[in-house]
Amino acid sequence: MEYLSRRAAVLAAARAQGADALLVTKLTSIRYLTGFTGTAGVLLLADRPLLVVDFRYGAQAREQADVDVEGDCAPPRLWPTALERLPRAGTLGVDTRNLTAEQYLSLVDTVGADAIVACPGAVERLRAVKDAEELVALRDAADLAEELIRRLPGWLRPGRTENEIAGEIEFAQRHLGAERSAAPILVSSGERSVLPHGQASARVLRAGDPVVVDLSPVVRGYRADLTRTFHLGAAPPQYRRLHDAVIEAHGRAMAAVRAGVRASAVDAVARSTLAGHGLDGYFRHSTGHGIGLDQHEPPLLSPYDDTVLEAGMVVMIEPGVYVPGVGGTRLEDAVLVTEDGCTPLTTSDPALREI
Amino acid sequence: MEYLSRRAAVLAAARAQGADALLVTKLTSIRYLTGFTGTAGVLLLADRPLLVVDFRYGAQAREQADVDVEGDCAPPRLWPTALERLPRAGTLGVDTRNLTAEQYLSLVDTVGADAIVACPGAVERLRAVKDAEELVALRDAADLAEELIRRLPGWLRPGRTENEIAGEIEFAQRHLGAERSAAPILVSSGERSVLPHGQASARVLRAGDPVVVDLSPVVRGYRADLTRTFHLGAAPPQYRRLHDAVIEAHGRAMAAVRAGVRASAVDAVARSTLAGHGLDGYFRHSTGHGIGLDQHEPPLLSPYDDTVLEAGMVVMIEPGVYVPGVGGTRLEDAVLVTEDGCTPLTTSDPALREI
Repeated sequence: MEYLSRRAAVLAAARAQGADALLVTKLTSIRYLTGFTGTAGVLLLADRPLLVVDFRYGAQAREQADVDVEGDCAPPRLWPTALERLPRAGTLGVDTRNLTAEQYLSLVDTVGADAIVACPGAVERLRAVKDAEELVALRDAADLAEELIRRLPGWLRPGRTENEIAGEIEFAQRHLGAERSAAPILVSSGERSVLPHGQASARVLRAGDPVVVDLSPVVRGYRADLTRTFHLGAAPPQYRRLHDAVIEAHGRAMAAVRAGVRASAVDAVARSTLAGHGLDGYFRHSTGHGIGLDQHEPPLLSPYDDTVLEAGMVVMIEPGVYVPGVGGTRLEDAVLVTEDGCTPLTTSDPALREI
Repeated sequence: MEYLSRRAAVLAAARAQGADALLVTKLTSIRYLTGFTGTAGVLLLADRPLLVVDFRYGAQAREQADVDVEGDCAPPRLWPTALERLPRAGTLGVDTRNLTAEQYLSLVDTVGADAIVACPGAVERLRAVKDAEELVALRDAADLAEELIRRLPGWLRPGRTENEIAGEIEFAQRHLGAERSAAPILVSSGERSVLPHGQASARVLRAGDPVVVDLSPVVRGYRADLTRTFHLGAAPPQYRRLHDAVIEAHGRAMAAVRAGVRASAVDAVARSTLAGHGLDGYFRHSTGHGIGLDQHEPPLLSPYDDTVLEAGMVVMIEPGVYVPGVGGTRLEDAVLVTEDGCTPLTTSDPALREI
């Protein structure tokens, strides 16, 4: 397994920031660094790492994690127990984005403010570049999401609710081997299609509706994220125009991805393409985001993130436009960044699917 | 709506702690205090409350919330924008359990450490006692969960996977009007039944398996939580003995609930009942927890929580035992605390269901 080398890389990065040891409190990062999949735990990363869990997870942690485990405390004693195990000398790096203020204040009481080094995103930076084993899981999740998209035309018909469509997706993804949905399933139809984040509702599908479906099955902890847009019956020209513009923005943004390019530059390509169609006012979310053990990971393909893309990153490309009175549409695929471009993990036809 | 009086009560509680205004950062608390259901926002509670959201939620917040809304910033600018809107005089209460250390440190930079008053759990204490409208939603969610339990015997049979059973549940709960599952669906069968938190897996059900099913459908934001145990075929005496002990602990704990009793005392009743059967070593989680807009809310029915129960609280009663080599079983129901006892929201027969 890669855990040992991942821990060495993270600890080296923390030490470069002046921290002798690093306290890891984000569960997906603990999984990434040790293999532990439980829902509570604290990892102290030092020359000899220690994973502290409560008694519910003691046996599981000893089985899954390749580090020393302390796993006997009651659940409310987890954090105090972790504090007791902190080194009393040297500096301690903490991920200030994944620690509550209450935890932080108790840390200050324990080791002193001067010993604390803020290391926000220390593990996330390493996690952004996926290794071979992670790519296998991401591809399996992507394949599963594509199979769901293939089945969707059989489920979508007037008279059914968005919630029922989400139920079909949940039933099928479980059958296909997914663990669960990483995020709420988005099924937004008709006038609801203008909601960029339209969770499935009780709305009944009607003939003439656009239907945006955004899926996120999880396989071995790794997430897919795939959006396609359907139309119940022939789409009117003004709606088709929106979708064609999104296809163009999606294709151009994907073509702009390669190692060495800034995340913000990819976003700018999608944004300017839609602006060329007079639609920039209707595309206000970002063009994409990293994905892995979390649904949204750095980098963010947005005007605000100048991260330089690296080979091995997996990022979503998901432009969309949402025009009140006309409708909304979005396309979303994961791509693996390579030295000279990118390799999409999903390749379903982006064309509007009229059913 | 109750929002106005809820806000007045929370602000009064914060002021009793020395805070002139209160910064609310937990989304379910923002929903509770304003009606806003989006996935990002910051509420400044003062004489004139202000809800800050990013542009994705501006229109939605103005429609849902009965307070002033500022909703034009880009998503990464949400927190900095909220900081700019803070009052420059007086003290500011913050919920240190629902604020990251990074946010806390930026608050210190903005208003000074001396102006900050830690108010952990300020809103949660009020939320623990449910009002009439909340009880209607909690009952609707509970009814939906009971209907799923009624349908389960039709789904459970040897040869199907736990994941497929979870898929049946997800499909049916969507059809019945649930928004989604609040928590991962637990379906733990055979030897996996000894996992207190056994998420549905690819394990294939076999004749002779116990199957523990733990459901959490959401209706209008409010959650149910219901566990029943099934057995594929006749249960052996040693397993039946476990289940009978859990029925007894569940019944006695429920009988111990009433306003004025400490949460820890209810836990002690379940724990001592199981100890009377020599099973206390196999019941290590807590006896229950509050429920509402969050799946786990205060109070916790555990040895560590001495909260005095109040009429109007809704708490789970969920004793379970997990004996390696024999199996695990759990029963879980929500009860409404009353002055002289409690009213269960779910009343399905707790008997072991042999299928």
